[in-house]
Amino acid sequence: MLRTHTCGELRPEHIGQTVTLCGWVQRTRDKGSLLWIDLRDRYGLTQITLEEGVEAEAVRESARHLGREFVLSVTGKVAERYSKNDKIPTGGIEIRPEKVEILNPAKLPPFLIEDDTDGGDDLRMKYRYLDLRRTPVRNNLMLRHKMAQAVRRYLDGQDFIEVETPVLIKSTPEGARDFVVPSRMNPGEFYALPQSPQTFKQLLMVSGFDRYFQIVKCFRDEDLRADRQPEFTQIDCEMAFVTQEDILDMFEGLVRYLFKEIKNLDFPTVPRMTYADAMRDYGNDKPDTRFEMKFANLTETVKGQSFPVFDSAELVLGINAATCAAYTRKQIDELTEWVKRPQIGATGLVYARVEADGQVKSSVDKFYSQDELQKWKAAFNANPGDLILLLAGPEAKTRKAMSELRLEMGRRLGLRDPNSFSPLWVIDFPLLEFSEEENRHFAMHHPFTSPKPEDLALLDNPATIGQTRANAYDLVINGVEIGGGSIRIHDRAVQARMFSLLGFTPEEAQAQFGFLLDAFEYGAPPHGGLAFGFDRLCSLFGGSDSIRDFIAFPKNNSGRDVMIDSPSPISDVQLKELSIKTDVVAK
Amino acid sequence: MLRTHTCGELRPEHIGQTVTLCGWVQRTRDKGSLLWIDLRDRYGLTQITLEEGVEAEAVRESARHLGREFVLSVTGKVAERYSKNDKIPTGGIEIRPEKVEILNPAKLPPFLIEDDTDGGDDLRMKYRYLDLRRTPVRNNLMLRHKMAQAVRRYLDGQDFIEVETPVLIKSTPEGARDFVVPSRMNPGEFYALPQSPQTFKQLLMVSGFDRYFQIVKCFRDEDLRADRQPEFTQIDCEMAFVTQEDILDMFEGLVRYLFKEIKNLDFPTVPRMTYADAMRDYGNDKPDTRFEMKFANLTETVKGQSFPVFDSAELVLGINAATCAAYTRKQIDELTEWVKRPQIGATGLVYARVEADGQVKSSVDKFYSQDELQKWKAAFNANPGDLILLLAGPEAKTRKAMSELRLEMGRRLGLRDPNSFSPLWVIDFPLLEFSEEENRHFAMHHPFTSPKPEDLALLDNPATIGQTRANAYDLVINGVEIGGGSIRIHDRAVQARMFSLLGFTPEEAQAQFGFLLDAFEYGAPPHGGLAFGFDRLCSLFGGSDSIRDFIAFPKNNSGRDVMIDSPSPISDVQLKELSIKTDVVAK
Repeated sequence: MLRTHTCGELRPEHIGQTVTLCGWVQRTRDKGSLLWIDLRDRYGLTQITLEEGVEAEAVRESARHLGREFVLSVTGKVAERYSKNDKIPTGGIEIRPEKVEILNPAKLPPFLIEDDTDGGDDLRMKYRYLDLRRTPVRNNLMLRHKMAQAVRRYLDGQDFIEVETPVLIKSTPEGARDFVVPSRMNPGEFYALPQSPQTFKQLLMVSGFDRYFQIVKCFRDEDLRADRQPEFTQIDCEMAFVTQEDILDMFEGLVRYLFKEIKNLDFPTVPRMTYADAMRDYGNDKPDTRFEMKFANLTETVKGQSFPVFDSAELVLGINAATCAAYTRKQIDELTEWVKRPQIGATGLVYARVEADGQVKSSVDKFYSQDELQKWKAAFNANPGDLILLLAGPEAKTRKAMSELRLEMGRRLGLRDPNSFSPLWVIDFPLLEFSEEENRHFAMHHPFTSPKPEDLALLDNPATIGQTRANAYDLVINGVEIGGGSIRIHDRAVQARMFSLLGFTPEEAQAQFGFLLDAFEYGAPPHGGLAFGFDRLCSLFGGSDSIRDFIAFPKNNSGRDVMIDSPSPISDVQLKELSIKTDVVAK
Repeated sequence: MLRTHTCGELRPEHIGQTVTLCGWVQRTRDKGSLLWIDLRDRYGLTQITLEEGVEAEAVRESARHLGREFVLSVTGKVAERYSKNDKIPTGGIEIRPEKVEILNPAKLPPFLIEDDTDGGDDLRMKYRYLDLRRTPVRNNLMLRHKMAQAVRRYLDGQDFIEVETPVLIKSTPEGARDFVVPSRMNPGEFYALPQSPQTFKQLLMVSGFDRYFQIVKCFRDEDLRADRQPEFTQIDCEMAFVTQEDILDMFEGLVRYLFKEIKNLDFPTVPRMTYADAMRDYGNDKPDTRFEMKFANLTETVKGQSFPVFDSAELVLGINAATCAAYTRKQIDELTEWVKRPQIGATGLVYARVEADGQVKSSVDKFYSQDELQKWKAAFNANPGDLILLLAGPEAKTRKAMSELRLEMGRRLGLRDPNSFSPLWVIDFPLLEFSEEENRHFAMHHPFTSPKPEDLALLDNPATIGQTRANAYDLVINGVEIGGGSIRIHDRAVQARMFSLLGFTPEEAQAQFGFLLDAFEYGAPPHGGLAFGFDRLCSLFGGSDSIRDFIAFPKNNSGRDVMIDSPSPISDVQLKELSIKTDVVAK
């Protein structure tokens, strides 16, 4: 190696040794007779000190014209430091150099390479390789590495085999939009990039692999948001000869192991909640259970008092923002504007304060007597100082708006500490959801999810079909869906029926998924599994909302990598070889 | 779990316990009063025994009509086996069932699910999920899993960080043909799938990651051969502040660790050979050094004896096939036909036997006196019983043909034992190779490889440019290139010069690789790395020549996955969304 030690390694016990360090100039301070260089690498920071009359003048001269981010090799003796810095592990020593060599100079970086940088998002994305030099960004990727290693260690210890499934697969009509790859050798035909290795992992169960996993890139060509990337990484798992209970146990174990290994936290036992309960109490299939603040359904309670908004509402929901009774008029108005924003979509906000004497004071006092308001209070077991917030309107919209308001109040009340972790299994998801737009059912999880055996009869009746529950489950932590899965269908007839319910003709089903239907006839074991969103799991562990911070080279919201300037046009020769033409419609 | 134990787990100490096993019917034997089922899962095979008058008639009936590959759940008591089978770990026990439940029946498989199957390649590819049930195939993938785990353990222990680099990147003109992905959000533009994460790993070095690795899928749209797949897996590595020596040490260490962990073999120290020596002695930059049989150059020795073939030859090469003097006329004729095959391309074969008395008898005795022939013998230090084989002709072609003949003779002499491992570093590769066809130089490794500093001046002169050596190296084991890499350029000016030598204008270089050239100006450390072909490494460890055997779902030579029938046409809606049209020219 060009170095004998790293910049994070030297301690007082090395004093007197001659060492060579390599790294980047974090900063220099020149006080004339004394010159300091802070040299940085991945492992830490070491101070280099040059003093008039001590270090040779030639060496001092070579150190005098260094810029930030120059790459140096410094050879010298480890010495005790004059003024110790107990904030860094190398703070007890410094290097008194015999030689300072510039391995590569550096232009002035376009933003500060410091924990707090002055660079904006776009600039940092363009110079991502410089942003990655900053300690918090590098730490995110080191966390990711450690987590991947720990996942593999746990699953290997549980007899899971990591199998690489193909990236060049086949486009299928279900699910999100596929990225496709034109085939040169098969003109007019295309591969697709996998949205998940779903069918392959099921085939591995048919093959008897018994326990499979893979940390694997997946791809979805969907419009992007802050927490969505066109390529993302899953921890993809499948087991044979299991019940839902076995899967929940196994992967609760994985998450518990990760919390212990990475954060030294004893992860609590994961409670379970049905989808129906989650929707009723939190208006959301991924409730943030770091705080309670459950919904109360006041639809019947508030009716018949001549308040037209509530009388005509399909649903009236309330939450109790405990301790918020002292909200000022201004705060309430601001909250009302907040719920009326298009993203939330409520038409107004009704509130009721519980005063010190237990009396309730509401924004609709002219419609509701104190007796009526006491019923509201009772619905929440509300106490003096509490603030009851009500929304009313169409069912789905009101539930969604109240879910957002609850999260917002949790945030305002400081109930969403990123260092506190509240996990939850949400179970018993519906099998199907109906699309008004396409006038047909879609699989809520995916078409390979098995209905609950006791609900099978519901599938026979168009009136009850939507009530059919699936053996499907999600792991939710702090309101974020971290993973999800299901017990799969392993019977050809049931799978064929599912495709039929989803609107496939038998011919279409055979053309798209014939290999899987066929496989089910050659001895398919009962099986199930789940997949974790690895980017999201890392961001949860890192205490961040943004998965981009945990991806080395992310793309922007237009799917562009602005650093390498991709995507980009390709040559006519390439197009011709691939038997395609571009067909861009002018806008 | 639906089972209490696996089919490989039960031993005599379990006798008397009631257990439930799940698995596949390997075979049944029905002798009337006695009925046996061999139940198989990933972990092993367990015998189920049903006896008239012992097991209930209902249970025996349920076991009587089972076919091969039916999936069963069997509950019963572990009993001592009548006739022990010491060939399998469960051979001391059997299960006496109380219940035999069919979890899923199976159609008759299209080929035997046995170690030796009767299925042809095409059938086994179509039903790959059944082929994967066979123990040797499953063992290959389990080996692959174990190797990947061990690679990660070693590199993690050496402070390497695994970083995922993007799959959707940018098409570049150097190297092999890219697979491309049309961008919906950026009409008329394309991503490319990476041929390797080369530029990203170099950027990670610029970022100060110091030690990076990734086990990563790479893609090349090239015509396929038995040992080439459109998607393949690399162990991709890079280090900063290193010399070539550090890299060779580190990764020799990795391979040594793998051999110890996986095969419990002490891997020898890896000798080094220059590219020039490898070409001179073996005619090949990846010599199989499990055996010696080096070339002797006899061009001058054999000239001037009026044998027109040798007199006019640019090169005359010989090898000594020790102990082969007893080859019959028929064997020699057959070998002559072998070297004349178009793949080998020699025009003929000259031989010379060393007889018991030390006299040499050749196929060209009418041109060469015994004195002359003794010079041949001396060139090899040949002994009685040896057979000297000579090829002559144009330089490159003769060297290549002799390399093939040497490997063939090694094979015939049993010198290429797949359980013996002979590693070799080939170093000092040429930097550039000249393409007559395109009348320009190409990078022999890739455009980011650094020239040897002492050879830099050779680049200035068109006459010597081809002699410039690179800081590039390959790890060769048993004649197979297992890995290769180089010390990289980390200086913008040198990199720009290299692009210029490869025929890029400065504008083209900036458009394609501007991000890397720019990065070199912001403090790039000296760095280098290498990549191993993971599929090939697995096949080497598994004692096989075929990488397909170590890939779960490989593609055939037309790039098709015949199991899922991919690639395939996509819909007009998809094409329109992607702003492309197919443009298939009728053949």
